Amino acid sequence: MPKVSEDHLVARRGQILDGARRCFAEYGFEGATVRRLEDATGLSRGAIFHHFRDKDALFLALAHEDARRMADTAAEQGLVQVMRNLLKDPAQFDWLGTRLEITRRLRTDPDFRSEWSQRSEELTAAATARLERQRSAGRLREDIPTEVLLRYLDLVLDGLVSHLASGQSTDHLDAVLDLVEASVRRDSRSWGIHTD
Amino acid sequence: MPKVSEDHLVARRGQILDGARRCFAEYGFEGATVRRLEDATGLSRGAIFHHFRDKDALFLALAHEDARRMADTAAEQGLVQVMRNLLKDPAQFDWLGTRLEITRRLRTDPDFRSEWSQRSEELTAAATARLERQRSAGRLREDIPTEVLLRYLDLVLDGLVSHLASGQSTDHLDAVLDLVEASVRRDSRSWGIHTD
Repeated sequence: MPKVSEDHLVARRGQILDGARRCFAEYGFEGATVRRLEDATGLSRGAIFHHFRDKDALFLALAHEDARRMADTAAEQGLVQVMRNLLKDPAQFDWLGTRLEITRRLRTDPDFRSEWSQRSEELTAAATARLERQRSAGRLREDIPTEVLLRYLDLVLDGLVSHLASGQSTDHLDAVLDLVEASVRRDSRSWGIHTD
Repeated sequence: MPKVSEDHLVARRGQILDGARRCFAEYGFEGATVRRLEDATGLSRGAIFHHFRDKDALFLALAHEDARRMADTAAEQGLVQVMRNLLKDPAQFDWLGTRLEITRRLRTDPDFRSEWSQRSEELTAAATARLERQRSAGRLREDIPTEVLLRYLDLVLDGLVSHLASGQSTDHLDAVLDLVEASVRRDSRSWGIHTD
């Protein structure tokens, strides 16, 4: 395929994803009708669904973008930094709410759940690798296995998404994340400080 | 009002709430149509909406039942026990998913948010009182204010609801809750055990 055409495809795909993200954030998953997706992307349904099979595919591609961005952060700075970044970006909170709306489908639709999990694998892998590096460097508490620490951080991340998406106050959340970070580290409590 | 009639009202209200809970759990908030609510409760729409103004009121009454039950547990045994009880009761997981579906409305509909918050006040009050008792008894870590610990436990609870409602594995969650419990306690790490 000629270079120009490939650039064009990538740009078009990005245009669709950006518009769709705004559309889902504003109207929710159910409310993001084909008409509204056309308005938000500035493209016809034909063009949109040429690039993405259906609304599910569009939504999963956005979830994948999130997972990839989070994985980049998690690989370098850990899951707590992923959470600090979420906290600093209120413009994303409405979109986070859309992610919650599909929870029922994750539970009741095995195909959808399987596609969703594939897209979060990258994040899980990055977070696991980072935790293992931290463990080798002697920075993690030694009394708790890595998979339990990972599940713990995941649970707090889910809680943060749910909290931010429901428009609750962000008071104290920085301090909460400090506590979470300290609670996976070696002896952070007796040191009185935590360092990276 | 004569005693018999009041008993009848309470029983009828309970019958409606039980049916509605099953109906929301099965079909979600949007999918719980008036027809399906009639089927699930065995009562006419007239009877249902004689007791509850509308579907929102029904949903909020169920959320209030949850909050009250959780508050009872939180008052005696703390928020971590509330989470342990959720974990032990998979029959409730579908209903938890319905709670997530209304997240968008919590963010976008101030009246709904205000009604929802009123109903969770009891739980917050019970959890706060319990933490303060634990603090007086010298069982809480001293380096972190009570309101931060409360927000932390709340966040983990939200994360657990989200995790269970999306049908993810419950592996390691008992160990995660042990970690959460230990991380709010005084010196639990150096003791190597935690006691109540």
